[in-house]
Formats: sequence, structure tokens, C-alpha cells
Amino acid sequence: MAVTMHDVAQRAGVSIKTVSNVVNGYPYIRAATKERVEAAIEELGYRVNMSARNLRTRRTGLITLAVPELSLPYFAELADAVISAADAAGWTVLIEQTSASRERETEVLSGRRRHLTDGLIFSPLALGPDDIGLFTVDFPLVILGERVFGAPADHVTMNNVAAAKAATLHLASLGRRRIAVIGAHEGEQVGSAALRTEGYREGLAEAGLPFDPALVGEAGLWHRSTGAETMSRMLDDGVEIDAVFALNDALALGALHALHAHRIDVPGQVALIGFDDVDDARYSVPALSSVDPGRDQIAHTAVELLLERIGATGDPAPFRRVVPDSRIVGRESTGEDGEVVGVQQGGTEQVAVDMTWA
Amino acid sequence: MAVTMHDVAQRAGVSIKTVSNVVNGYPYIRAATKERVEAAIEELGYRVNMSARNLRTRRTGLITLAVPELSLPYFAELADAVISAADAAGWTVLIEQTSASRERETEVLSGRRRHLTDGLIFSPLALGPDDIGLFTVDFPLVILGERVFGAPADHVTMNNVAAAKAATLHLASLGRRRIAVIGAHEGEQVGSAALRTEGYREGLAEAGLPFDPALVGEAGLWHRSTGAETMSRMLDDGVEIDAVFALNDALALGALHALHAHRIDVPGQVALIGFDDVDDARYSVPALSSVDPGRDQIAHTAVELLLERIGATGDPAPFRRVVPDSRIVGRESTGEDGEVVGVQQGGTEQVAVDMTWA
Repeated sequence: MAVTMHDVAQRAGVSIKTVSNVVNGYPYIRAATKERVEAAIEELGYRVNMSARNLRTRRTGLITLAVPELSLPYFAELADAVISAADAAGWTVLIEQTSASRERETEVLSGRRRHLTDGLIFSPLALGPDDIGLFTVDFPLVILGERVFGAPADHVTMNNVAAAKAATLHLASLGRRRIAVIGAHEGEQVGSAALRTEGYREGLAEAGLPFDPALVGEAGLWHRSTGAETMSRMLDDGVEIDAVFALNDALALGALHALHAHRIDVPGQVALIGFDDVDDARYSVPALSSVDPGRDQIAHTAVELLLERIGATGDPAPFRRVVPDSRIVGRESTGEDGEVVGVQQGGTEQVAVDMTWA
Repeated sequence: MAVTMHDVAQRAGVSIKTVSNVVNGYPYIRAATKERVEAAIEELGYRVNMSARNLRTRRTGLITLAVPELSLPYFAELADAVISAADAAGWTVLIEQTSASRERETEVLSGRRRHLTDGLIFSPLALGPDDIGLFTVDFPLVILGERVFGAPADHVTMNNVAAAKAATLHLASLGRRRIAVIGAHEGEQVGSAALRTEGYREGLAEAGLPFDPALVGEAGLWHRSTGAETMSRMLDDGVEIDAVFALNDALALGALHALHAHRIDVPGQVALIGFDDVDDARYSVPALSSVDPGRDQIAHTAVELLLERIGATGDPAPFRRVVPDSRIVGRESTGEDGEVVGVQQGGTEQVAVDMTWA
């Protein structure tokens, strides 16, 4: 049987109200009474019923991070960075995986579980611009990613177009002329795939290279397996390439495996660059060049914006959109040695929220 | 302003008690009344206060999974598998990362946040046999891993000794005689490192190979970085080796990188096998042989045992310890093609809990 507040009161010889006052840190209690109650709590192993307590204090000390998929290294490492940043501020993070399902993403926003924590950092992958109404919520929210712009919430995003352009231009600067892109989503207008493919096209244009649809490799899911399949298909189709820009590192590592299986030397015959700069990139064979989108800064900024929102009193501050600096890190897969070969500057702006959506 | 139960009662023209009965699924309510209340809830956008509700129903529909580190692929993939298994049974998983800190692991067990969910699946990495008293808890608990045996809880563990022995014997069966092990923890008596090193020694003995301390590579943390450092150190020290058994895949992938940097051919000069069979293993260059410890079975069994415990009425069932089957998967790094080259059978037993610990 769980020990109740009543048991504690009886043991300490005080009223339940007094026990409640001690448990909730009410200041005007005689030291001797407080000690007696605390001794009784200790002796009986009483645990404060946090549900009841939260109903009064309305603060949990917890925040939620909702991400699509923890088995994608980018999100696992993002979770790790968010936990560190929150921990440094004395907060604990509960993580939810949405598996990129509309239903779960909607549930994360619905408020059904919102009483568990004081705020939400949310990286949606299934919801998009048409669902922006769902993002009008009555709890502190920070949105990550490239699916939803213009929602009434703080937003931390990436320098996608500029970074993808820089990655493409970097491959061109190495003398590569047949630069494939892997991970494109044909017809999709929003999200990372659309933005990074746009950057790829801008890079080609600036380098004076023609856009060739044969060089565009579709891959719906951005996993190692799909990267390997897409790369294999292009190689089996005899598409001539001397470089690959993969839209994330998982795709790049899969592509690397397929290039190896086809006995194509990287970077001798084909140079390869990914996006995300996950830990694996440093240890693949050969080590993978990548775009570092500023993951630690994303995590820190998201936590900072959320805690500011949670602690806010008075008029709400305007919503902000923050874009961290990104960097091109050149490793063996582009014939380099781990140096930063380019930086794309980010910045912060106030978000003009179009409330007609809501 | 949040809509209250009072607002709903007013709109529906019923008492607050009736609204409460509808919200809590009380069966004896007239259909017309129920419809009126539900319409009012809909119209006003009323959200049930789950904290208040949980105080009564004492069931959240959520379970917690606490793991050391999500940026280790094994735990990220385990989380993914637990979420899938729970989802299939209609449950949602909240994930906590403990960062292998004693303080956080203790907090996970302390019950301070236990009201948030109905049960806990917990893979400890900092707590050990001396802390077994902490595992005597008054909520449903399933322990994962090799740190804590004999606690009064269900336990899903791995076939560590047998699988490590089989991995070592497999390398010996390929004609390798100088088999290094990477990831050992000198002096540590509990946990995966001790058990897998024991299996390595048993494998050497059965293959008639001498144990050579020079072949034992210490690596406190089991990350790619430490695998690469340990492997480099052994190679720089001129230790003669023709095979490596890495105690997890992250170490193996780091070691692979170091072997590549030292221009040592895998598997030509050095054969390599890891442990965990994470997704990366299939896509490294060359693809990594590994021990598949039955992760999906671990996840499914853990969820099944926990939900059974949550739903239990009457006398508690005896605690069980479940060990899934493990498999040796031979890929390019041992000159094979992805086939299962060995199976170690697991099993289920009732745990004799030594309650004098508690």
C-alpha cells in the first residue's frame, strides 16, 4: 500500500494541511513542525504525489522533445544535444518519437499529454504548411525544421539553400562536372529535400554547369538503405558521374557503400559530400565530407527560446526565427583532411505571423 | 482562458458531476445526457485535465524507456524497437536518456516522475550490484542489460558469454591466431565488458589459443572514437594481430577506420567482428560482421513483460529472466556474405530473487 499524506500527518501528529504546506515549501511553518513532518516522510518513505502537486504549482521541470526517428543519427545526436543544453539549465527532457506519422504528430500538439511537461520542442516531418492551424497552441512551443514556416511559435531552422549551394559549389571547385544529387523528392514543395535540391540547382547554375535530370536520384526516406539503393540504381543505369551530393549523411553513407560495391574509388573517381555532419561521418571509410548545419547551436537555441517562453510573464515577446551558421567540412571523401572549407552565415529575425491561418 | 468543466456543465445544462461522469466513462448515464455533454465539450474545445483524471483512474497509457545514450546506435535502435512494440499494443513510450550518470539513473527509479507513466523499462549503465536495493520499487519495472542481476523485477538480458565465445571461435575457425579484443574494462566484474571478455577467453581456450594480455585493448566508453584510438594505439605499439573482436559495433567501426588509416586490409590482413548488429554494420566499408543479440526480441519481450505486470491483478507472478537467441552474422569484414554463421540459444527462467538485498 502506498503511503498517503494522511499517514504522514498521523505519524507527525499534525494536520494534513500542515503536511501539505511542508511538502509544497510553504514558508511560514515552525522549524520544529517542519522537522517532525520531514522525519515522518523519511520514516514512512512517503512520496509526493506529483500529479496532485502539479495541479497546484503548474510547473513540472520537464520539457518534451518530439522527433521523427531516433534511429536516424541526426535526430539521436540532436536529442543528445537538447538533453545536454536543458540539463545545464536544470531541466529534464522527455523524448517522443513520432515515426513521421501524421497521427502521432497531431497527438503531440493536441495537448492530451501537455500537462506532463512545461513546453515542447517539435521537429515535424509529416505535418506541413496546410496544418499550420494545429501549431496554434496554448503552451510554449519551439518548432524545428523546414516543414512549417509562419506558425505562431519560435522556430529554429537551417541554412538549407545556402549550405546546399555551397556544398555543390565546393564539388565544382574540385573540378567535378557531373554532380549527382541523392535524396530528392520530386514534386514536393516544402521541407529539407525541396530546399536542399534548390540549393543544388543554384550551385550548378553559379558554377556554369547544366542541370541534368539524369543526375537527380530520388530517395523518399533518407536512410542508409535508400542511399545505397539509389546510388546502385544510378550506377547500374550507367549514369556518368564524378561527384555526389547526398541530402543527408545516412544517404551518403549508403551511397558510399554502393560505390564501394561497384569498385568505384572515392574520391578518385567520385567525390562525395553529405549533410548533417553526424558522428559516423568522421569514422566512415573514407571519412565523409559533410555540411555541419550547426546542430549544437540548434539544440541550445531551441532550449533557450523555450525556457524563455516558459518563464515569460506579461506581454508575449514576438516570435523569432533563428538560423545557425553552417559549415562545409572537407574530409577524405572529397580529398581533404577535416578542415572547414566554407561557412554560411545564419541569423535571427522576428517572425511576422500571419494569424489569418489560425 | 482554458475552458473548465464548469463551462461545459453550464453549456450542457447539467451538473459538474455529470460532466465528470461522462469524461471518465461512467457507464450509467442516459444517452441523451451523454450526447449533450459531448456536444458541449466539442463546441467549447474542452480538454480533459489529465493530471486530475490520472489521480482517479491511475492509468496513463504511457510507459517510460530509460537508456544511457541515444547517440549510441544500439540504444537508438532499441528505442525504436520498443516504441514499435508498444505502439502495436496501443501504448505510447516516453524516453529518458540517463547519460550513464548515477544521479539520473537513481532519479529514474526514485518515483519522482513515476506518476507520468504506468511502468518503466530501464537499461542502467552506472548503477550496479551494490545498488540493487534501489530496484525494489512499487511500480512495474523491467530491467535490461547486464549490470543488475537478482533484483525483484523482470529482466531481459543477452547471451553475452556464449555469443562472445562464439564470435571468438568464429574468428579462430577462419584460421586467425592473434585475435585482439577491443573494449575491455580491466578489473570490472560486472556488465557487458566483463561478460563478453569472459566469452572471448573461453573462445580462445576452446580454440587452443593462448591468452595474451597484449591483445586486450581497453576502451572505457564504447564509442567510435574510443574504438579508433584503441586500435591505433595497438597498431602503433606494433602488436601483431590478424583478427579483432570489438565488444560493440561502435568500437568496431572506429577500429575499422583506424585499420584503414594504417593501410591494413580488412579482412585480408585483419578480420573484424563487432557486437550488436546495428544498421551501420550493413553499410560500412567493408560491411561489418557482428553478433546480433536479438534486439527486436529484447524490445518485444520487455514491452510484453511490462504490460503484463501493469495489467496484473491478484498475486504477482514470479519474476522472469529472458535471454533471446543471438546470432553471428558474417559479412565482408570476415570474408563472408551476410549469412548467419552461428546461433546461440537463449531461454526463459524464473528469477530467484534474493530479498535479503532489499
